[in-house]
Amino acid sequence: MDFSPERIDGFNRNSFYQTMGVTIETAAGGEARSTLRPNPDLCWPFPGQPHGGVLFTQMDTTMAWAVVTRVEAGENCVTINLDIQYTAPARGDRFVCRARVRHRSGRIVYTRAEVTDDAGQLVAAGQGAFRVVKALL
Amino acid sequence: MDFSPERIDGFNRNSFYQTMGVTIETAAGGEARSTLRPNPDLCWPFPGQPHGGVLFTQMDTTMAWAVVTRVEAGENCVTINLDIQYTAPARGDRFVCRARVRHRSGRIVYTRAEVTDDAGQLVAAGQGAFRVVKALL
Amino acid sequence: MDFSPERIDGFNRNSFYQTMGVTIETAAGGEARSTLRPNPDLCWPFPGQPHGGVLFTQMDTTMAWAVVTRVEAGENCVTINLDIQYTAPARGDRFVCRARVRHRSGRIVYTRAEVTDDAGQLVAAGQGAFRVVKALL
Amino acid sequence: MDFSPERIDGFNRNSFYQTMGVTIETAAGGEARSTLRPNPDLCWPFPGQPHGGVLFTQMDTTMAWAVVTRVEAGENCVTINLDIQYTAPARGDRFVCRARVRHRSGRIVYTRAEVTDDAGQLVAAGQGAFRVVKALL
Repeated sequence: MDFSPERIDGFNRNSFYQTMGVTIETAAGGEARSTLRPNPDLCWPFPGQPHGGVLFTQMDTTMAWAVVTRVEAGENCVTINLDIQYTAPARGDRFVCRARVRHRSGRIVYTRAEVTDDAGQLVAAGQGAFRVVKALL
Repeated sequence: MDFSPERIDGFNRNSFYQTMGVTIETAAGGEARSTLRPNPDLCWPFPGQPHGGVLFTQMDTTMAWAVVTRVEAGENCVTINLDIQYTAPARGDRFVCRARVRHRSGRIVYTRAEVTDDAGQLVAAGQGAFRVVKALL
Repeated sequence: MDFSPERIDGFNRNSFYQTMGVTIETAAGGEARSTLRPNPDLCWPFPGQPHGGVLFTQMDTTMAWAVVTRVEAGENCVTINLDIQYTAPARGDRFVCRARVRHRSGRIVYTRAEVTDDAGQLVAAGQGAFRVVKALL
Repeated sequence: MDFSPERIDGFNRNSFYQTMGVTIETAAGGEARSTLRPNPDLCWPFPGQPHGGVLFTQMDTTMAWAVVTRVEAGENCVTINLDIQYTAPARGDRFVCRARVRHRSGRIVYTRAEVTDDAGQLVAAGQGAFRVVKALL
């Protein structure tokens, strides 16, 4: 599936992304990119640093967008597993996640992703397997 | 370290836990247990189901509490990696996470955890490695 | 599927298990147990300690046996992913792996396993997702 | 540390690599590359396909070589955890693994790796965390 900027904008207005501070920027051709602008309420226990669960959320979400660029209309995906590594403290007010599909085998899609801060420092990296399912919405 | 119920209550009032809906119930002897009461704003894309990032947050947080029961005063921990499996759709308004320390080797602590719904159905399971660090706060 | 001791014995004579030193002991009801008697040629770089790849092999194999107790005749399984933690040096001449199925969702089966030495010390722990496939042999 | 081709050749003659069929080709600057020429005895249960434990061994070993290019003389490394994804059946008589260090934080080193067959098809991908330790040999 391809997603127009307008359609992505529509998704970006959901309450979950808004609360977490995640914005999907692009999703096409097995790749996706997002921006995280941390919600100060979610910067805990270290002020100014989004919690690891927020970075995970950005990564999982961006991987899923990379996956859905490779499914048919009427399909969606769910996470089978995701392994995340936290490589450095996440300091700053903007983080970029780039995710890509590594391989698809039947209904299983393998992805990887990296999150970097504004200086290009790697703060988290991960790989995950997703299952393609019939869309429920 | 041991944590009195009063001290845990204090932590539970932070804005991150409040937004995510996570409450730490107990933390002692290398084990911790928490409850997630999902924030409807974070139940997306499936109404009534907390996003996988919310379940991850509950798991990561509960693992960290299990770890800090085994560190000294003045120490804290950070996540090295966490692998999460999503085993079933997370339906319901209360989820319990139980985490335990598997092993400690020097400053590396190995944990595992499971999240179940109110019917006892497993919805997520994971394992993670943490590093013991000097407390920054 | 259920496996008689005779059938398991037959599998245990394959050249792969023989070289690696792995013997499946039991497999029933979503659980499996194996023994590793390390081949000295595979104890490297630390004499007397099987390489991490040997412990991984024991774990992956034992998980797969746990999975196939839950599939139909004419089906087999393949590993989607496996995350292994090495918790302590693997010293000794016998290691036991216990694996169990955590959950099955359609054709995806979620497992976990632990490897202990003869003193009961945990040396490795893991979790993996498997896909049920038509048997090719 | 830097490793001369002669020194790498010396390591390649150990009985573990010989049995598994692994040869380290290069290791420098946080990267390493190896070749796997599968031992037929270890191609089980699918003839002509090395077992997943053999591919894991190649990956873990190659990651470790990438790590030790970044440690001091007198240091070595051990695996904390490694998550491997199996993306496609491993058919063929030669597989190449490329591993690289993603980041180092204190004594923890984060890596990733991919294994491809002779046609360039991805058969396995992984990420692992290693701990730098004093060399024991």
